[in-house]
Amino acid sequence: MEQYLVLLSLAAAVVALLFALGQSRKVLKFSEGNQLMAKISASIRAGAQAFLRRQYRIVSVFFAIMFVILMIMAICGLLTYFVPFAFLTGGFFSGLSGFIGMSIATRANARTAQAASEGLNRGLRIAFSAGSVMGFTVVGLGLLDISIWYLLLQFVFKLPLEQITGAMITFGMGASSMALFARVGGGIFTKAADVGADLVGKVEAGIPEDDPRNPAVIADNVGDNVGDVAGMGADLYESYVGSIVSSCALGVAAFKNISAVENIRAVAIPLILAAIGVVFSIIGTFLVRTKENADQRTLLKALRRGTNTSAILIAVLSFFVVWAILGIEFYGIYLAILCGLLAGVLIGFFTEYFTSDTYKPTKHLASTSTTGTATLMIGGISLGMMSTIVPTVIVSASVIGAYFLSTIGYSGNSQLGLYGIALSAVGMLSTLGITLSTDAYGPVADNAGGIAQMAGLDPVVRQRTDALDSLGNTTAATGKGFAIGSAALTALALIASFVEKLPEGQYTFSLMNPNVLVGLFIGACLPFVFSALTMKSVGRAAQSVVEEVRRQFREITGLMDGKADADYAKCVDLCAKASLKEMIIPSLTAILTPIIIGVVLGASAVVGLLAGATASGFILAIFMANSGGAWDNAKKYIESGAHGGKGSDCHKAAVVGDTVGDPFKDTSGPSINILIKLLSMVSIVFSGLFIAVSLF
Amino acid sequence: MEQYLVLLSLAAAVVALLFALGQSRKVLKFSEGNQLMAKISASIRAGAQAFLRRQYRIVSVFFAIMFVILMIMAICGLLTYFVPFAFLTGGFFSGLSGFIGMSIATRANARTAQAASEGLNRGLRIAFSAGSVMGFTVVGLGLLDISIWYLLLQFVFKLPLEQITGAMITFGMGASSMALFARVGGGIFTKAADVGADLVGKVEAGIPEDDPRNPAVIADNVGDNVGDVAGMGADLYESYVGSIVSSCALGVAAFKNISAVENIRAVAIPLILAAIGVVFSIIGTFLVRTKENADQRTLLKALRRGTNTSAILIAVLSFFVVWAILGIEFYGIYLAILCGLLAGVLIGFFTEYFTSDTYKPTKHLASTSTTGTATLMIGGISLGMMSTIVPTVIVSASVIGAYFLSTIGYSGNSQLGLYGIALSAVGMLSTLGITLSTDAYGPVADNAGGIAQMAGLDPVVRQRTDALDSLGNTTAATGKGFAIGSAALTALALIASFVEKLPEGQYTFSLMNPNVLVGLFIGACLPFVFSALTMKSVGRAAQSVVEEVRRQFREITGLMDGKADADYAKCVDLCAKASLKEMIIPSLTAILTPIIIGVVLGASAVVGLLAGATASGFILAIFMANSGGAWDNAKKYIESGAHGGKGSDCHKAAVVGDTVGDPFKDTSGPSINILIKLLSMVSIVFSGLFIAVSLF
Repeated sequence: MEQYLVLLSLAAAVVALLFALGQSRKVLKFSEGNQLMAKISASIRAGAQAFLRRQYRIVSVFFAIMFVILMIMAICGLLTYFVPFAFLTGGFFSGLSGFIGMSIATRANARTAQAASEGLNRGLRIAFSAGSVMGFTVVGLGLLDISIWYLLLQFVFKLPLEQITGAMITFGMGASSMALFARVGGGIFTKAADVGADLVGKVEAGIPEDDPRNPAVIADNVGDNVGDVAGMGADLYESYVGSIVSSCALGVAAFKNISAVENIRAVAIPLILAAIGVVFSIIGTFLVRTKENADQRTLLKALRRGTNTSAILIAVLSFFVVWAILGIEFYGIYLAILCGLLAGVLIGFFTEYFTSDTYKPTKHLASTSTTGTATLMIGGISLGMMSTIVPTVIVSASVIGAYFLSTIGYSGNSQLGLYGIALSAVGMLSTLGITLSTDAYGPVADNAGGIAQMAGLDPVVRQRTDALDSLGNTTAATGKGFAIGSAALTALALIASFVEKLPEGQYTFSLMNPNVLVGLFIGACLPFVFSALTMKSVGRAAQSVVEEVRRQFREITGLMDGKADADYAKCVDLCAKASLKEMIIPSLTAILTPIIIGVVLGASAVVGLLAGATASGFILAIFMANSGGAWDNAKKYIESGAHGGKGSDCHKAAVVGDTVGDPFKDTSGPSINILIKLLSMVSIVFSGLFIAVSLF
Repeated sequence: MEQYLVLLSLAAAVVALLFALGQSRKVLKFSEGNQLMAKISASIRAGAQAFLRRQYRIVSVFFAIMFVILMIMAICGLLTYFVPFAFLTGGFFSGLSGFIGMSIATRANARTAQAASEGLNRGLRIAFSAGSVMGFTVVGLGLLDISIWYLLLQFVFKLPLEQITGAMITFGMGASSMALFARVGGGIFTKAADVGADLVGKVEAGIPEDDPRNPAVIADNVGDNVGDVAGMGADLYESYVGSIVSSCALGVAAFKNISAVENIRAVAIPLILAAIGVVFSIIGTFLVRTKENADQRTLLKALRRGTNTSAILIAVLSFFVVWAILGIEFYGIYLAILCGLLAGVLIGFFTEYFTSDTYKPTKHLASTSTTGTATLMIGGISLGMMSTIVPTVIVSASVIGAYFLSTIGYSGNSQLGLYGIALSAVGMLSTLGITLSTDAYGPVADNAGGIAQMAGLDPVVRQRTDALDSLGNTTAATGKGFAIGSAALTALALIASFVEKLPEGQYTFSLMNPNVLVGLFIGACLPFVFSALTMKSVGRAAQSVVEEVRRQFREITGLMDGKADADYAKCVDLCAKASLKEMIIPSLTAILTPIIIGVVLGASAVVGLLAGATASGFILAIFMANSGGAWDNAKKYIESGAHGGKGSDCHKAAVVGDTVGDPFKDTSGPSINILIKLLSMVSIVFSGLFIAVSLF
């Protein structure tokens, strides 16, 4: 019977996709508003689609090359023949998640603006529905990919379970590679457009944000869709899949020596957990609604009601899942799952604490602007660095908790402990359907605000979309904490999966082994170098946008008086070109480093590399995300009237802080999440090579 | 015979101290210039002495408490009775090094100004002589402390060798604790005064740097002496001693199973290496001289000639040292020493490459100011992050090289490899006498410039001291690279020494052990939190200086017209109070964290903690030092006329960059060096407690 358990996750995948389809129909039924709004929306959509098409074309060259390399490795006997194909499907579905999310988001933006003109709740419903299309597409496609491969390998190719989970884990590498390109490329696009538009438009020309006279305004809106929507979709697809497949692989290893339970049941746990997560996330979405005259606090409550209810329901039901599948004596495994769920909630809360202007840290940061830009910079950096301690302690407690709780009754079975850590990541991500919905709705609201401004709608519409957008900033902060927390746990599970791939007893991962130490140093350095590369890229790309916008202001007569149209397409094209060029080197760095270290210094050094990169990347990502988020909200706080309000010296300082924070929080920071998992994925796929080639 | 080898290092210690004495006499013979100069110098000296006295009073309370705790541990049998006393002497000599360095520096500043009024070479000679007093006091006191303890334990208490080196390593903890207080306290003082003086004086009041009307100007000059001189002296004393004592301890372990060589000879190697380093460093100092009409390039050449000659002589002679003491078959150990020497030179060179405005990175950084403060901030941060890759690769290569080279012929003897790593740190630091001289002369020249300005000397004098000071920036950058490189190697050696203290086979340091992993995460987080704490401290202390300076400008009538004197002492007192208050929490964090982790999560987790902190701290320290250095020099580059020169928008942006960079490079960055070693030292001293108490 147990081999049919996977059918449940296949069913959940179908349910998620159908729900996404239903939600997208609901969105599309709504009016796009007047002709101008539809036209603006169409150009944003066209720009985003053109960018993604070009991006996917470049990425497909990379995938083709990797496919050939993996095929050669398979021919040499270093891999099974399923791996190259699994790699392709992982990449394909990850890209597809991003594409669908972007498609619906660019169709929902004008509709949200229109809906907001009718009322706040209507606006929220449309934006949130669009977000949920993305949320459920990601989990649906993720579960679909996993379930189909599983069933195929089990029933068609009749592979033994160990080989099934081994092959499945490798399609995570495809997903991660795609995700990294999407995050880095999209992240550079969105911030280059944003920074470029702000530097010339707001600072030099003194026109408001989203003013139609600014030639980079469409590019800025396109950026939200390709970066914050498509990039994030690919990113979380990869996290979701990575946590599930690594749990499956570790489950097989953990139950090898526990004869009372067939290890196929251990493989089923993460899949069923994900499946019930889908169902309860859907239930949660129905709770996200509010009264027409709601304020921001009520809106946030509505969103929280949805996510919290889902989390509680999952927490309760997963107890019965563990009981039914593994038996009551494995209640420790249930507790490990709970650790992950709880850690996710706590990290989300503390991320908000550090970055929201309703709490002390960001308020204090805003006050440092009174002594100038320099003190605001120092304040933001130290806030971000300080804030790393909380998620570190939470994740550490979760790791220790998950490990030791899951080995209750089986102490000494370290593989069971590692399985527990992997499951805590699955637990954290089980609510992904709804948390991603609340996260992805932000950019839609942001775009809606832009369209309202450009189409000259009643200011009350912009006020409403601003309320939605500002709420989006809070959910985005929570989402970021969630993404990085799950990334750390998933990366640890993947490191354990890598170690599982190595011949037993032949390698030592002791910190007293110099190769491990050197790997650790290089690994710890990698996120810094990677962040530097992506920040430099944003700088260069923004520079070219600045020059183009300046050129248009100079050369297009009548532009500033609103008598002539700006050449929006040129800016979109420029951003696309620059970001596609710039995304290649950081991505290749991430893929090549573990291969080089593995070949030169051996598999032990790779474990050091992965651990070093995970630890330092986790902390650097939190630092950058929280510094950036706090600067952003400190600016908003000042704009709301504190310390002299808009136009004051404090505000000028805060604009600088926000501009510095932009690549921190939207390009470099989130890319690190993917980086640390991709490193592990690449190492897993190439482990055979390291064993065969390296001298160590 | 071999037990008398240590007498050689005692002799070298005496030679170093005598040389320092001779140099200080040479400096003191020189005239202090006119009465005003002498008066200014006296008030700087009084401020610095008052600060150090107060600092040492607070620190001595800490030492008293620690002494009692260590005594209780000794009574409980967790330590030998020598440890509490060794702890005290380590702290005492570290503090003494700083105090002597400060004393001579504050006596040499007016003399350097006077000498510079007579000619550039004279100025260089006086400043460099003052620097060399500090350099040779540090190495002299370090070797003295080590040698006396060694001889005492061997001949008076007749302890076995293992216990001798075990006790010796613990006085490193005293030195490290003192160094951390000195670095953090001094670092906060100097930057609070600097930032405070600049923000109100330069930015708000528009008066030049070092203008006597600025009430914080004396505090700023005091800061150079207590931070850059006394703090750095204590810091490098600690590195020097730490590398030597950890090599001694590892040497005993390494030669336990090699019957051909008595392990007392392995203990002698680092001591003799240090001794010849002293002799050749003294020879090197005689080569530092230049013609009267020398330009900056020639000055730099003169300094380089001194350090390079010393390094080459040491490289050659240490071959014969290894041959004579261990035998020719241990030539691999010699190569390990060479690895360290070479790594030191390379890191120094690349630090200069990334931070000097004669190279591309800083020139490019200066150009990012043309698009505003935000792009300059992003540019500096990414430059610093990018620059971490080079020292990481150099140190990694050095670790791998030292480990495997030193085990030539004895492959598999991992303790021999760890001994090799420790010796590479000793090799790197063997030139400390002269490198520290070239480093410590910078603040003297800086102070001399301040005095020249305040005493209204001929502008040509300020030009000359500026040339000396600017050169000091270059040597300081090199020195910082050197300090952090040696800190990483020493920390690794100390981690190995900690592991040596644990009962064999009872602990696992594998990265698959969840406690090790969690230790790694917390360790990686620690330098970030520590930096945040110290940066916040600088911010708070600077804030209070800003308010005081504003108050004086407001309340003292005639101050701006030069008709009334500013109340300098008030600012000095304020900086002292603020920095002494602020130094306590970061320092206690560093000391308590390993103890808490060790007691709660056990010795394995501590190894993870130490490795994580070393890797992430090393990289963070380089990032902060190089970002700060590059911003500083980008500002100088713009001031020299590029991008509109002084007063342009680019210059304003660069001033912000420099202000942000100040706590990066002079407070947080260098304190991390000490942090990573202190963590290991504390762990070593408390290892008995972890073994006795922890459940893991």
